[in-house]
Amino acid sequence: MLTTFTVPTNEEALTGLAKETGLALKQAGLMAAVAESCTGGLVGHLLTEIPGSSAWFLGSAGVYSYRAKEKLLGVDHARLQREGAVSAAVAGQMAAGALRLYEADVAVSITGVAGPGGTAEKPMGLVYFHLAASDGASQAEKAIWPADRRGNKLLSAQFALDMLRSYAADRQIT
Amino acid sequence: MLTTFTVPTNEEALTGLAKETGLALKQAGLMAAVAESCTGGLVGHLLTEIPGSSAWFLGSAGVYSYRAKEKLLGVDHARLQREGAVSAAVAGQMAAGALRLYEADVAVSITGVAGPGGTAEKPMGLVYFHLAASDGASQAEKAIWPADRRGNKLLSAQFALDMLRSYAADRQIT
Repeated sequence: MLTTFTVPTNEEALTGLAKETGLALKQAGLMAAVAESCTGGLVGHLLTEIPGSSAWFLGSAGVYSYRAKEKLLGVDHARLQREGAVSAAVAGQMAAGALRLYEADVAVSITGVAGPGGTAEKPMGLVYFHLAASDGASQAEKAIWPADRRGNKLLSAQFALDMLRSYAADRQIT
Repeated sequence: MLTTFTVPTNEEALTGLAKETGLALKQAGLMAAVAESCTGGLVGHLLTEIPGSSAWFLGSAGVYSYRAKEKLLGVDHARLQREGAVSAAVAGQMAAGALRLYEADVAVSITGVAGPGGTAEKPMGLVYFHLAASDGASQAEKAIWPADRRGNKLLSAQFALDMLRSYAADRQIT
């Protein structure tokens, strides 16, 4: 999926979305976790800007190195070596790993090339996302963002929050 | 220690310090990790704003829940129940845990009451920090910040970055 969000000016521009995400999780009675590579912790930071977030947020595994991806989240060593950290398969394993590690109801992962740099095959702005849930739900997404390092991180955080929000919004307890 | 930093206006105000921290770590040949409770991922986000941060940053364990503190970082269950997550002892165990988990050279932890709320014993703004290193270095700090939730998170991130920067600066390879 090629996504065309506008670039958020800064973190504060995403506080509203973080609040909506928290509200949706709370109303659905879901506990969420995150696995972050290129965003480094930004999604966890945004979710914890919201007072009372401990009622629906367990934590975010910042896994910048290959070794951390393997050790914390159980990402397959051979697959990392073969396909690289920026791949749909690794995003999937990161989300499944975060779900297990945090004993969460729903987890979302982010792995990409924030930039600068990149290759023809994996250009700057390429980011894979995955949502995994204890009800068996699984959603894979891919974006190619047009911004700089900072903008690509903000766009990725926005996208990941929206995946969580959307999943939770569909599961409101009525 | 009662600290009197001024409140950073926003995350971008801390990018310079994150850059200095990265440079100091790089020049000392050290790999760093972080364990974040009340900051939620902000320190990891700031460190990964710097291009090339994978050369000196392994990741940040966002451990918002008690269970995550125990499971990821090996914080003692009985101690958590007895002293609460916001305590010098838990900060120490979080830093030691992050050092082990990420196989890092140096790790810093942050656990506190960002607010709103708090108690007489543990007021809003109370934050414990701990730095642990593979060379045996250990540094415990405590601050009582005067700001709101957002400001207290920014002040805490600033302080944790400065602990890392200062440790690394004293260990430059000459």
